[in-house]
Amino acid sequence: MVTTHRTLAQLSEGGLLAEILPLFAGGPAVPVGPGDDAAVLAPGKATVATTDSMVRGRDWLDAWSSASDVATKVLTQNLADVAAMGAVPTAVLVSLMADPSTPVDWALDFARTLGEHAAAAGVSVVGGDLSSAPGGVLAVSVTALGDLEGRAPVLRSGAAPGDALAVRGTLGRSAAGLALLEGGADPRTEPRGIRAECLAHHLRPHTPVRAGREAAEAGATAMIDLSDGLLRDGHRVAAASGVRLALSPAGLHEDVASLAAAVGDQALECVLAGGEEHSLLATFPRDVPDGWRTVGVVEAGEGVTLEGVVQQPRGWDHFDAGSR
Amino acid sequence: MVTTHRTLAQLSEGGLLAEILPLFAGGPAVPVGPGDDAAVLAPGKATVATTDSMVRGRDWLDAWSSASDVATKVLTQNLADVAAMGAVPTAVLVSLMADPSTPVDWALDFARTLGEHAAAAGVSVVGGDLSSAPGGVLAVSVTALGDLEGRAPVLRSGAAPGDALAVRGTLGRSAAGLALLEGGADPRTEPRGIRAECLAHHLRPHTPVRAGREAAEAGATAMIDLSDGLLRDGHRVAAASGVRLALSPAGLHEDVASLAAAVGDQALECVLAGGEEHSLLATFPRDVPDGWRTVGVVEAGEGVTLEGVVQQPRGWDHFDAGSR
Repeated sequence: MVTTHRTLAQLSEGGLLAEILPLFAGGPAVPVGPGDDAAVLAPGKATVATTDSMVRGRDWLDAWSSASDVATKVLTQNLADVAAMGAVPTAVLVSLMADPSTPVDWALDFARTLGEHAAAAGVSVVGGDLSSAPGGVLAVSVTALGDLEGRAPVLRSGAAPGDALAVRGTLGRSAAGLALLEGGADPRTEPRGIRAECLAHHLRPHTPVRAGREAAEAGATAMIDLSDGLLRDGHRVAAASGVRLALSPAGLHEDVASLAAAVGDQALECVLAGGEEHSLLATFPRDVPDGWRTVGVVEAGEGVTLEGVVQQPRGWDHFDAGSR
Repeated sequence: MVTTHRTLAQLSEGGLLAEILPLFAGGPAVPVGPGDDAAVLAPGKATVATTDSMVRGRDWLDAWSSASDVATKVLTQNLADVAAMGAVPTAVLVSLMADPSTPVDWALDFARTLGEHAAAAGVSVVGGDLSSAPGGVLAVSVTALGDLEGRAPVLRSGAAPGDALAVRGTLGRSAAGLALLEGGADPRTEPRGIRAECLAHHLRPHTPVRAGREAAEAGATAMIDLSDGLLRDGHRVAAASGVRLALSPAGLHEDVASLAAAVGDQALECVLAGGEEHSLLATFPRDVPDGWRTVGVVEAGEGVTLEGVVQQPRGWDHFDAGSR
């Protein structure tokens, strides 16, 4: 196709927008979508807002991640934060900062996947920005909005001693996938199985979006998106709530066992400290709802323990190279 | 000071956040501010949302713009888009994508000015993201939310023949300031006067935020933020409304005359095609409200004319190098 080799420099901003905007579906909650000075969202309940960015060379490598992969990941990061408040995501805005020599197809593949996955989650892409960047630079930034539908937000600060600690979604798969990529694994040729699942979760993570609302309705006292690792994010809940989270080896056994086939004795560390998983961690005063599995209990005290041993809050930190 | 030479690499993400978050004031419209998975905005009327980014080396040069200047400009770009919908800005989210060798003081100066100017505009900084970037990369992305307070949004598409065309704020100053910088002017030594005002408007533009609501209350039929130039943005209103905007030389005379002392015979081109001004252009079926000045009329037809001569939509385009 002729279009394969077009770069952004060959299109005007308006020309690129004309190709991108049809990739984003509107919705009933959006009286005015992209194209005016700003979008208009219909009057609703309290609005939840969050933002996350990805930068090529740091958050992804082109050798491993396609434009579609990047779109999936940056959208998931944002939707997970909305879900972790107990809200339902309604709209996203997206910024693309790109070297003009970036292939047009990269931008279109990114926008197409973002639009498809947003639509599948009932989310409208309501705005965005295109900025030219110096040679080699490619970055994307997404802001997501959500609706609490009249419920109180589920904060990190509400956990109380006696609550059950539970996870919805996988643990450690993204970190295991990254370890496999660093070890030379090729996602395109990897046969089906746990290794392929880990590679896929690292490149195109998903988050249990609807579980956020379900947890809120089930009375969750605290909730967080596992973006920086069970220990680091667990410490955040413990600190905000003024409690200790006591992880149980029995609760994590299944996660560790399933990963062992992919990464051997790194499995436990992936489960405890692996970032970018985007599963949900929550505390419940009563029964843990369907689909969640208990991984520990909330106790009086501080920090996070495993079998009674205090765990440091290791995990992902964006600027501190020593933390990994 | 010891702090002068700290770089982001020497701080953890949490350490940097601990210094940044106190720089952002909360507000009554923000039950939950930064620090949890997402912010919560109080239930309100319809929400307006927009986003704009700036990238070093394209949208600013460190030789000309300080961190404080960049914060002022990216905030103004966003607030102007909210105002141009007839809404009142309520909250912003900010992403910083930075090479870890970036001085900590750059990030703190950026955050401090963003927080101060947001607070002055009654806007809360409710969230953000810090991302590490490859060597030399520095970019910021802001998303702004606003409240229509029960009014209908003022779109680009409502102008009708017979309406008056009016501007609130300056014209051409940012472009004139850029021309002066490119000609070697030094903002630090420039004496008071129109040249200094142009330099200041280019580096630290302001937008008449409250005029957006005032225009909506006065019955504005269409409105746009002048970010890409009077002609290019005028064409957008003309196309969206299916009308012609007829600019009057008499209406622009004062702008051109005041700029002539700064940039000579480039003054008219700055007024017509200069971007990044962030004044507001609106159409009114009745009297033009106080503080606005009439610059033309809306006619049947298409495009933008000056003294009856059709004007091409020249002005700023982010990816098309040939458009400037």
